[in-house]
Amino acid sequence: MGAAVTTTRTEAPGTNTAAAALTVTIDDLRRQLTEVYRAWGMGEAHIETTVEMMLYADIHGIDSHGVGMLPLYSQWRGEYQLNMRPEIATVREGPAIAVLDGDAGLGHAAAHAAMGLAMEKAKSIGLGAVAVRNSAHFGAAGAYAMLAAEAGLIGIATTSAHHEIIVPTFSAQAMFGTNPIAFAAPAGRNRPFSLDMATSTVAVGKIVIAQRHGRPIPEGWASDGGGRPTTDPDVALENYMLSPLGGTRELGSHKGYGLAAMVEILSTMLSGAIYTGTKAARRPDAVHPGVGHFMLAMDPGAFREFGDFEDDMDDMIDALRANRPVDPAQKVMVAGDPEYRAAEERRRSGVPLPAMLVGELRAIVAECGAPYVLEG
Amino acid sequence: MGAAVTTTRTEAPGTNTAAAALTVTIDDLRRQLTEVYRAWGMGEAHIETTVEMMLYADIHGIDSHGVGMLPLYSQWRGEYQLNMRPEIATVREGPAIAVLDGDAGLGHAAAHAAMGLAMEKAKSIGLGAVAVRNSAHFGAAGAYAMLAAEAGLIGIATTSAHHEIIVPTFSAQAMFGTNPIAFAAPAGRNRPFSLDMATSTVAVGKIVIAQRHGRPIPEGWASDGGGRPTTDPDVALENYMLSPLGGTRELGSHKGYGLAAMVEILSTMLSGAIYTGTKAARRPDAVHPGVGHFMLAMDPGAFREFGDFEDDMDDMIDALRANRPVDPAQKVMVAGDPEYRAAEERRRSGVPLPAMLVGELRAIVAECGAPYVLEG
Repeated sequence: MGAAVTTTRTEAPGTNTAAAALTVTIDDLRRQLTEVYRAWGMGEAHIETTVEMMLYADIHGIDSHGVGMLPLYSQWRGEYQLNMRPEIATVREGPAIAVLDGDAGLGHAAAHAAMGLAMEKAKSIGLGAVAVRNSAHFGAAGAYAMLAAEAGLIGIATTSAHHEIIVPTFSAQAMFGTNPIAFAAPAGRNRPFSLDMATSTVAVGKIVIAQRHGRPIPEGWASDGGGRPTTDPDVALENYMLSPLGGTRELGSHKGYGLAAMVEILSTMLSGAIYTGTKAARRPDAVHPGVGHFMLAMDPGAFREFGDFEDDMDDMIDALRANRPVDPAQKVMVAGDPEYRAAEERRRSGVPLPAMLVGELRAIVAECGAPYVLEG
Repeated sequence: MGAAVTTTRTEAPGTNTAAAALTVTIDDLRRQLTEVYRAWGMGEAHIETTVEMMLYADIHGIDSHGVGMLPLYSQWRGEYQLNMRPEIATVREGPAIAVLDGDAGLGHAAAHAAMGLAMEKAKSIGLGAVAVRNSAHFGAAGAYAMLAAEAGLIGIATTSAHHEIIVPTFSAQAMFGTNPIAFAAPAGRNRPFSLDMATSTVAVGKIVIAQRHGRPIPEGWASDGGGRPTTDPDVALENYMLSPLGGTRELGSHKGYGLAAMVEILSTMLSGAIYTGTKAARRPDAVHPGVGHFMLAMDPGAFREFGDFEDDMDDMIDALRANRPVDPAQKVMVAGDPEYRAAEERRRSGVPLPAMLVGELRAIVAECGAPYVLEG
């Protein structure tokens, strides 16, 4: 992975911050993250898992969920008293299901353990589901669904979030996190089908980009403080109220709202995590966010003759890619294609880090006393 | 249910069809459906299940999926050689999963059996999933998810369809049915959370209504023959190409497209059903549509202490209903609320049948020699 690439420095034009934008190798990024977590006191057993789950996002172009989260993790470490040496405990277990307690740590290691356990059950009896409570942000949901798909299983991963941002249809209050759903399924000659989607119309990042460019946002992305659709990115970012997928009632926002609630039920109610929408009233004392995850794995080999599922997946994927496109220049894609393309590019050329993030990483490293390895 | 109601005849103003609109009691509708299926030669064991699953839709205001389907079933009975006396077979079974073969019948009885089996497994080991192949239209997906919720379980139901209508993002070809997802979860003092959504932005019925009123449709509902968004209901109904949830690329149609594909994978690839998107090339000989379903049931009592899940569900549902609304006249709803309201109304006042449907029902009854019971 990126063996021939070296970390390169790029001057960020038009910025006068101390740091410049960088493109770093995956290996360097892995080393830097490892050093920070070590300095933060994370147990060695969890460092590798946490770093690999974060790198999944950076490698696959999901810039909002990899190293870009480290400044927030740094802030939350104090604010939420994240436990850097959690003992992840199995609090309930049967042949098909289990519940894990994340012991107030970050979410990556707990979610990784949960999907691993669900996969064991699926390999044994065709199906397994594991819920996690007392956890926190786990990076990209797709990383966990893909653990299953890479092992020949169907994987589903969902998570709650500790900050409400999605606004129900007809409401003027945010009541859910971006509550993502990831679904991955193996194919034969094709890479796995890999869907990883927030149940909001867009991520906050897209509104930030519109703001930077001084462009209006489409109606259906976000609302103003009164719950009415806004096209002004400044208003959207002041209120932090995202529309559920569908955008407006007319275009089916009640479906996106329903999906966000479904994710909350699977992640929070099933595990016994804290529901952010009522936290202030019900759990005002809770310091740790108490996020919940849900992982399900299913073995196609238990349902079909060996190879038949994968053949049918290839058949569908090939047919979709061969679709007549609206614009000949933009071929029809299959879920996961943009991420696979990014991974190919970044394994070859490295991961670009914007100047602001480089500055934040340098500050984090300086603060915790870890070695800084990104600029040689 | 509707004991005090009598079937009433209403003149449909402005129509000169032979039949007039009717409002019928649920009991009369049950009797009429039963008589038709008996005349069609359906086995008595399947008649009750099929009729109750259809009535779920009529009672809950889902007019597109109940008795309104009978004219199409009548047509498909010949066209697709629907087997009226199918022997639903369990072709694979383990402690957590099973695969059923619907024996080329209608889908209601097979899907009902599949959810029943998934529920048995969930009650035994917390989780069960059953896939069905060689089936056909099963009515409203929500009917099956609600079987689980009424028994205190979480239920998920999906189905493929035998006619492609959803167009992938960037594509000019329909590649999936309306591929619905239903998810239901029990609460305590509240009725179950009950989401039942097509993965298209809207149902065809909504475009038909716009056409009747001579109104344009919003961009994001459907596309023209070239795959470009159209606002003309005539163009939309000529091409029968619906947008996935999200509507346009800018508003996240790739997510709706991903969900439609996920439903296809669960319903078709996992069961070994026929994928409509490649049927012409791969299974040109198949007469029966070979639709697939997927049913999953999960027992919250296996994950949580008794009653805790239901308490947390009530907490969330109450908080959502208490949300500050954008418009004080339109309160925030929870998935299932519109259907519960319709059920209350229809149990009291009966089920309205438009004049055109009454005419079609009379023709079906006359053709098969069943007694006509709707107009006393």
